[in-house]
Amino acid sequence: MTDFKKEFWDRLEDVRAGLMEVDGRLFPMSPNVSDDHDGVIWFLTANGTDAADAAKAGKAVRFGICDTGSGLHGYVNGTAAVSDNKEKLDEIWNFVAASWYEEGKDDPDLVLIKFTPKDGEIWLSPENGAMFLFETIKANITDSKPDLGGRANLTF
Amino acid sequence: MTDFKKEFWDRLEDVRAGLMEVDGRLFPMSPNVSDDHDGVIWFLTANGTDAADAAKAGKAVRFGICDTGSGLHGYVNGTAAVSDNKEKLDEIWNFVAASWYEEGKDDPDLVLIKFTPKDGEIWLSPENGAMFLFETIKANITDSKPDLGGRANLTF
Repeated sequence: MTDFKKEFWDRLEDVRAGLMEVDGRLFPMSPNVSDDHDGVIWFLTANGTDAADAAKAGKAVRFGICDTGSGLHGYVNGTAAVSDNKEKLDEIWNFVAASWYEEGKDDPDLVLIKFTPKDGEIWLSPENGAMFLFETIKANITDSKPDLGGRANLTF
Repeated sequence: MTDFKKEFWDRLEDVRAGLMEVDGRLFPMSPNVSDDHDGVIWFLTANGTDAADAAKAGKAVRFGICDTGSGLHGYVNGTAAVSDNKEKLDEIWNFVAASWYEEGKDDPDLVLIKFTPKDGEIWLSPENGAMFLFETIKANITDSKPDLGGRANLTF
């Protein structure tokens, strides 16, 4: 039996981009997962972005993923908040961030977002990036079809 | 000057999965692009799926993409319709579809969806899958930063 929640966090570590949805608008964001699997998706962004504004307002956020490489697809719903957790920032800080924030981790433009998912729905596909007809899973016509993945509702 | 619309169609050819949004629900779908670049995103699905129902009802649909491999991210808005275009079906039919639809292209469960985008918003990132902080583009703080991609509104 597939542990979908474990698969979600494990595969999310390899996901470089997803779509954040706030107030019906979508924009790409790069998720970060902490080594201790703290149940949080961390994002780095800049003051003035839609993501930063959403976090400052504590808004409801949906994060969508359609990552062929890791075979993780779907979305999680939750709330975003600004965090001043220096340990987490140290952990997820990377060379990309370093190239964008001139003053490093103390750059006043830098915003660390703590996104806590509450529930979601995911589809798993083969991690080799094979083509895949997702909806056939949902249609429950898979009994006699190749076993390539699965779909599950998640509650965190 | 980047031709974002051309980049959209060119890169979409390499995208294996995106998220279709109908009535606020998201589910993964595999897009197909015709060789003649007809301005349509084609999908294969089965009777009874949310995608098929949306197409039969001619609903407004959003298709979101966050594909690290091709460096294409964002969404397009449009309408979905059921199509009986045999030539397009021949063109996009593939071994994955063949493994799911036992009766082949004549399988009564098979539904060909014609999704015509009207507008959208895309972000381009390097095609090598490098990590990327998208929102920094949007925040217009990129003047002195690495030139890694761009963002554009699209009208089709």
